[in-house]
Amino acid sequence: MITLHGTPRSRALRVSWLLEELNVEWRFRFINFAKGDNRSKDFLALNPSGKMPVIEDGDLVLTESAAILRYLAEKYGKGQFLPEPGTAQSAKHEEWVSFVICELEQALWSMGKHRFALPEEQRLTTMLPVATFEFDRAAKIAESWVPESDYLLGEQFTVADVLLTQTLMWATAFKQTIPVKLGAYLARVQTRPALVAVLEKTEAIAKAAQ
Amino acid sequence: MITLHGTPRSRALRVSWLLEELNVEWRFRFINFAKGDNRSKDFLALNPSGKMPVIEDGDLVLTESAAILRYLAEKYGKGQFLPEPGTAQSAKHEEWVSFVICELEQALWSMGKHRFALPEEQRLTTMLPVATFEFDRAAKIAESWVPESDYLLGEQFTVADVLLTQTLMWATAFKQTIPVKLGAYLARVQTRPALVAVLEKTEAIAKAAQ
Repeated sequence: MITLHGTPRSRALRVSWLLEELNVEWRFRFINFAKGDNRSKDFLALNPSGKMPVIEDGDLVLTESAAILRYLAEKYGKGQFLPEPGTAQSAKHEEWVSFVICELEQALWSMGKHRFALPEEQRLTTMLPVATFEFDRAAKIAESWVPESDYLLGEQFTVADVLLTQTLMWATAFKQTIPVKLGAYLARVQTRPALVAVLEKTEAIAKAAQ
Repeated sequence: MITLHGTPRSRALRVSWLLEELNVEWRFRFINFAKGDNRSKDFLALNPSGKMPVIEDGDLVLTESAAILRYLAEKYGKGQFLPEPGTAQSAKHEEWVSFVICELEQALWSMGKHRFALPEEQRLTTMLPVATFEFDRAAKIAESWVPESDYLLGEQFTVADVLLTQTLMWATAFKQTIPVKLGAYLARVQTRPALVAVLEKTEAIAKAAQ
């Protein structure tokens, strides 16, 4: 049984979604930021940075959403969700993974950090327009790369789709402008039944805990 | 023949170093920022963001250093430099990769962006102390994780070692404080003959081109 620590709509959604796609046994442990759950002694023992998501799989404790997705896809996915290693398809997959977590997401995370996540004395409101500039610049590159196929690599739904889709959902929540082709991509992938189901499931758990 | 586009001491060092470790045929194409090489039509056709490193391997054009390292290790490494997929060792490897490129490096990249890489009107000198705060916080976590073994995963030198070592070299160049255990790790790994050789080789090429 895998335990996922997180909130329904956050980077933890990447993990809950893939767990649902993988059809493995897992449970959701809701981390209530408002109650300081992520600064509790128990949580900091799992991740000293206080960040989500974290998974426990037997003795293994793992942080960093991109690392968790790869681990789960490799261990439980039997070749689904990741292209064949060492191929050009795999190279392009890794390029998307890295671009999403290092470029697209970092601009959004800058907004989050300077709005609420950094200690108050480190927050700069002047960073918010810079972060929007950076998001727009990264989104423009992603727009030039995104295909019209169902998924980033064509017909195969992969880890990179989970990362890009959740990041675009995050951008929407932060009221950023999403270019046309990326928006159409988001609309297509957001209909995955596992994503719809897992949001319903985790939000019900979070609501019951509040 | 693989072509690497970049400068000697930058994220491109990650790639040149691994190419040297892999003992494959490759050539270095020096990108002279001072002469605007990274904004040339030819370079932007390879990477519309104007960022290095970029590799060409036959028809494949690949950007994003972490993606390039994984591709090269998978295609040419025959199981060296990456742990067995799906294992706990591999999970911990991926956690390091993600932590280095999303946390440790982003703080340094913030410094670079607000000093020289962003358009002038987007640069904030007030971000420099915030970036140092973020670097120190990430370095403290890395310090609590770094082992006393030769490499991050024990005796096996991996892609994560390339990423962490180059990032710590970058931090040194940016005059950041590196905690004790991380500093000892850096001193150990920096002696790899391939790293020493590739710096000498690429710096000679860059010097000749200037």
